Amino acid sequence: MNFENWKGFESGTWKKEINVRSFIKHNYTPYDGDEAFLEGPTQDTIDLWEQVLDLTKQEREAGGVLDMDTKTISTITSHAPGYLNKEKERIVGFQTDKPLKRALMPYGGIRMAEKACKDNGYEIDPEIKEFFTTHRKTHNAGVFDAYTPEMRACRSSHIITGLPDAYGRGRIIGDYRRVALYGVDRLIQDKLEQKETTRSAMYSVIIQEREEISEQIRALQQLKEMALSYGYDISLPAKDTKEAIQWLYFGYLAAVKEQNGAAMSLGRTSTFLDIYAERDLKNGVYTEKEIQEMIDHFIMKLRLVKFARTPEYNQLFSGDPQWVTESIGGVAVDGRHMVTKMSFRYLHTLENLGAAPEPNLTVLWSLRLPENFKRFCAKISIETSSVQYENDDLMRFHHGDDYAIACCVSSMVVGKEMQFFGARANLAKCLLYAINGGVDEISGKQVAPEYRPITSEYLDYDEVMKRFDDMMQWLAGVYVNTLNIIHYMHDKYCYEKLQMALHDKKVTRWFATGIAGLSVVADSLSAIKYAKVKTIRDESGIVVDYEVEGDFPKYGNDDDRVDEIAYDIVHRFMAHIKKNHTYRESIPTTSILTITSNVVYGKNTGATPDGRKRGEAFAPGANPMHRRDSHGAVASLASVAKLPFIDAQDGISNTFSIIPGALGKDDRIFAGDIEVDLDCGTGACSTPTLFEGLDSDR
Amino acid sequence: MNFENWKGFESGTWKKEINVRSFIKHNYTPYDGDEAFLEGPTQDTIDLWEQVLDLTKQEREAGGVLDMDTKTISTITSHAPGYLNKEKERIVGFQTDKPLKRALMPYGGIRMAEKACKDNGYEIDPEIKEFFTTHRKTHNAGVFDAYTPEMRACRSSHIITGLPDAYGRGRIIGDYRRVALYGVDRLIQDKLEQKETTRSAMYSVIIQEREEISEQIRALQQLKEMALSYGYDISLPAKDTKEAIQWLYFGYLAAVKEQNGAAMSLGRTSTFLDIYAERDLKNGVYTEKEIQEMIDHFIMKLRLVKFARTPEYNQLFSGDPQWVTESIGGVAVDGRHMVTKMSFRYLHTLENLGAAPEPNLTVLWSLRLPENFKRFCAKISIETSSVQYENDDLMRFHHGDDYAIACCVSSMVVGKEMQFFGARANLAKCLLYAINGGVDEISGKQVAPEYRPITSEYLDYDEVMKRFDDMMQWLAGVYVNTLNIIHYMHDKYCYEKLQMALHDKKVTRWFATGIAGLSVVADSLSAIKYAKVKTIRDESGIVVDYEVEGDFPKYGNDDDRVDEIAYDIVHRFMAHIKKNHTYRESIPTTSILTITSNVVYGKNTGATPDGRKRGEAFAPGANPMHRRDSHGAVASLASVAKLPFIDAQDGISNTFSIIPGALGKDDRIFAGDIEVDLDCGTGACSTPTLFEGLDSDR
Repeated sequence: MNFENWKGFESGTWKKEINVRSFIKHNYTPYDGDEAFLEGPTQDTIDLWEQVLDLTKQEREAGGVLDMDTKTISTITSHAPGYLNKEKERIVGFQTDKPLKRALMPYGGIRMAEKACKDNGYEIDPEIKEFFTTHRKTHNAGVFDAYTPEMRACRSSHIITGLPDAYGRGRIIGDYRRVALYGVDRLIQDKLEQKETTRSAMYSVIIQEREEISEQIRALQQLKEMALSYGYDISLPAKDTKEAIQWLYFGYLAAVKEQNGAAMSLGRTSTFLDIYAERDLKNGVYTEKEIQEMIDHFIMKLRLVKFARTPEYNQLFSGDPQWVTESIGGVAVDGRHMVTKMSFRYLHTLENLGAAPEPNLTVLWSLRLPENFKRFCAKISIETSSVQYENDDLMRFHHGDDYAIACCVSSMVVGKEMQFFGARANLAKCLLYAINGGVDEISGKQVAPEYRPITSEYLDYDEVMKRFDDMMQWLAGVYVNTLNIIHYMHDKYCYEKLQMALHDKKVTRWFATGIAGLSVVADSLSAIKYAKVKTIRDESGIVVDYEVEGDFPKYGNDDDRVDEIAYDIVHRFMAHIKKNHTYRESIPTTSILTITSNVVYGKNTGATPDGRKRGEAFAPGANPMHRRDSHGAVASLASVAKLPFIDAQDGISNTFSIIPGALGKDDRIFAGDIEVDLDCGTGACSTPTLFEGLDSDR
Repeated sequence: MNFENWKGFESGTWKKEINVRSFIKHNYTPYDGDEAFLEGPTQDTIDLWEQVLDLTKQEREAGGVLDMDTKTISTITSHAPGYLNKEKERIVGFQTDKPLKRALMPYGGIRMAEKACKDNGYEIDPEIKEFFTTHRKTHNAGVFDAYTPEMRACRSSHIITGLPDAYGRGRIIGDYRRVALYGVDRLIQDKLEQKETTRSAMYSVIIQEREEISEQIRALQQLKEMALSYGYDISLPAKDTKEAIQWLYFGYLAAVKEQNGAAMSLGRTSTFLDIYAERDLKNGVYTEKEIQEMIDHFIMKLRLVKFARTPEYNQLFSGDPQWVTESIGGVAVDGRHMVTKMSFRYLHTLENLGAAPEPNLTVLWSLRLPENFKRFCAKISIETSSVQYENDDLMRFHHGDDYAIACCVSSMVVGKEMQFFGARANLAKCLLYAINGGVDEISGKQVAPEYRPITSEYLDYDEVMKRFDDMMQWLAGVYVNTLNIIHYMHDKYCYEKLQMALHDKKVTRWFATGIAGLSVVADSLSAIKYAKVKTIRDESGIVVDYEVEGDFPKYGNDDDRVDEIAYDIVHRFMAHIKKNHTYRESIPTTSILTITSNVVYGKNTGATPDGRKRGEAFAPGANPMHRRDSHGAVASLASVAKLPFIDAQDGISNTFSIIPGALGKDDRIFAGDIEVDLDCGTGACSTPTLFEGLDSDR
């Protein structure tokens, strides 16, 4: 395998097989310098961005949506090309035929698509509605056909919540770099070879695999067709930086034309693209100014990715996020850091175009990142509050040096791993169910099995712990089985064919469960153990409130007495999860991650033994409860850092705000020190998190 | 469970559970009398039938199709009611809003639906075509996505043929009697209970089961809705004969509105309906004349069931068959025969309305059928040539007394068994592949694996037999795997939700393979063994013809030397079939059945060592080769009867023509004796058989 367009690249395994990591490893140029080389925006960039700002303003004035397609169902090739200003755009491509026009995507669920239209003042074409009701089943319809009454009850009572059964599961990252490096023809060739090497006894799983590969091949052909409509033949590898960016973006664009997953992340593209930039700079093909302009235009396009959502969705997210997460930096397993000039250029877009929540620029932070880059990150963070940091030193051990973050904290090896996203289980409510023998403390309904309730006035730690463990085992079972249904149906009715076309044949699938309310549970159990907790019952005998007598150790103060409890709960819950069959031989894992939806969880959960009142918000993710971490920042972070990453490989999120003064007197300290105490997935996110709580039963 | 409408029926298990057999067993009245009680057609019947004849004439004059729907996709509720003459029709219901208007059914394959329209001068709605190409995948599209190149090669070279990958698999009989006996509400209730008793760990097979039951429930609701559009509320059990026929027919009508399977058989309804008729006659609700009129109108409706087919399909079938097979008579396991007055009434329609190929009235023949009925059958057969006979004494042993025939010879317990129809493997061609080392004797292509070919000039029996056995093993593997794909996709894209709603939750699934060319293979091996067979090779060394020197025993003469070979081949092939995984825990079986398609098989098969020339037709089904059965009818039948039914439980078909004189001098001998020599599934069919050979690759 060799192509003219690869001239000047060092050879490696990547020429023998589809292997972008090998290409990067053999060709990238670590950059230790500072940001002095960066260029400001060109006039075209300024003009285009003004146009975007104007459109965005119009959109806001129109009530949040400028235009919606109500007739053409979105596919990779459904729409004619769209432009802002064809003359000025270096990188082209929109989801529909014009910017900010939302596409119609009913595969996930026709009612959701209809509601998204209706709530924004549009009417879905009645024939399409009829068709997707009668003849073309959707993911959502499939799921509800298979749910058990128990699953519905768990969903309605919010002990399991935010399930991707009415929206796209997202959290799959296509390796969009492959489009640029290999061209689509080579990728199709590879898929054809994959299809010829499936196992030959036609068990249903093999038939499914063969059908999916066929779908992937079709998606790649459509990808070519779409690019051609913009005037680009992407059959062959990209020949320069501009084409590399454009080819890569076409790959991503096809994904967001096909899928409206809650998180449509980009991957880890900057170091890859830097290789093209270095070659072009060396050969005088493009100047730094031209390259920055392309990146600015690329990022501008990513900022304009939009989906048709319902107002409930937007409200939950405090906006309209896409989670176009791009992972920057990190360190290679050979010891070299992976910061390149392109890492700077990506972050620099926050200066050239101004701060923005999308794309979700995420720095894979390591002690070994070059000092100049650390400083630059700190500077951009301070200026824009638009950078997310995650712990590369921790994740590299598990995933190597070509993983990326999907959504907020889900790490996966690009093109080799994907995730079955599963939102989360409300462990705080689970604790209340343990106390009340499976009766929901708010609705009074028997949701969980009729296990023996606690009948004593004061709670006994061992008794509660035993009940809680049993209840977690039940919850883990119904939760995993619910997710099995969701992912079976998503594959059946809403398969991500383009994204999966940019994966290897052998894909590791993570079965991502999640935990909500960890700090509430830890503190509650600590209160029961170290203080005295009195139950307050309503007339039917259900415990509806608690009185805590005395003090108790609180999670977030580096106190092992309670931190061990938090650790233990995560470990136990994960052990229960593992007892269940998981769809498609996926590997069960969990995350401790909620961010904004902690408010919704709290709202739907009764009073807890830690003194938290009914309806009060949980702490986000793995955070200690607000104001209970009274021993300072380091102690608070230390408690979080004790959680077992091996049991929560899908990520542990800690939302941490610090007043600048607390960190010392100049910027250097912030840039250099703080990460040592953090676990994976420390969110300095400006974009609030996941789609949660759109739990309206059909 | 009790209903007012059940008044006068004897109780039994059928009141506790859905169990039509129990109802029949406790309530039917065997009838030993003769046909004297039968009534001729009423004036309304005569008028309606003339109208039908006129419409049929118009249809013929219009080139075979009177009208086609090109816009409304057929579902149970897609069309407004249709009538011949509302005032005169006792039993109502058409597939579309008028008689003989063919429905549009694209779930099986959009190209086939399109071609059926186009070839009849109609144009499918372009939006529908686009939708079923882009957004709503079909069975056919799914199958071709999963096929291997080897499967395609086998299909193109006709070593596996007639596969239901471009048309509905059919061969599923809903227990339409349940609609009449229980009413739809009770059936829905039963399905809801079934859904609550699936296994609870959500493996994919369980998710599939739960989704299917949900689909079934929806189909039952639509069935009610459709009946209501005709003015009938079928929520509750039928109250009399007319309602029983109408309810039952609505069940069947919903099936043929939803599915255009190659064989859409009715089941075993006559004895069931007789129970209602006996009650009504006894209570003076209806007269015999009125009851016969209802049956005449019911049968008239069955004769008008039509599908949109391609000319190739019709040509192969010498017509436009639906295989509305109704099984009549037989003997109960308690020893009573199951002939009732209704058995006579059904056959009598051939007199009242005249001879017709549909419905395919099939008598389950037993030595123990009452003499009067046997005589009546003989009389009707002689007059109309429209009755099929099958061996109840043989099938009862395997299936009990509530089975029915699907299509031609496939026996299955009504509502408890279904079949994955699989057309057949061409064993004669397989023998040639064994001789030529897997190279197709017509195309010269290497289709099978490159096994060692025969290189000698004269064929050696042991050598050929060894090679043939290896080749059969290969063929069985690729054949079963091809069928696994077909049935996986049929379930996925074209599931028979109404028909399966009229089945138990626990369904026994037969995995029905089939054999073609049996007598050619038996005679060929006999020639190699007992005569001398010289190979004639073309320039590339492929054996393309044979010279037989000397005589050899031929299958069809009751000669064990060759009959044992035939037996052995069936047994060996079935043993190879069993080595493979079969979809959905189905039970592998085979049939020896081709009837008209034997011509197509022969056309695509080179010369064989028995002296048959390239392209010459095979014998149909398990028949001896034409004119080789030189020892008389009994010897010919005896050879067929030796075949192992246990290895070919899906049926062995023998098409047997006798000049009347050969059977004696009066009708009595024909009616009384001949069945003793016949194996299961002796076709005296007037309707030629299965859809074969529409093998056009995509």
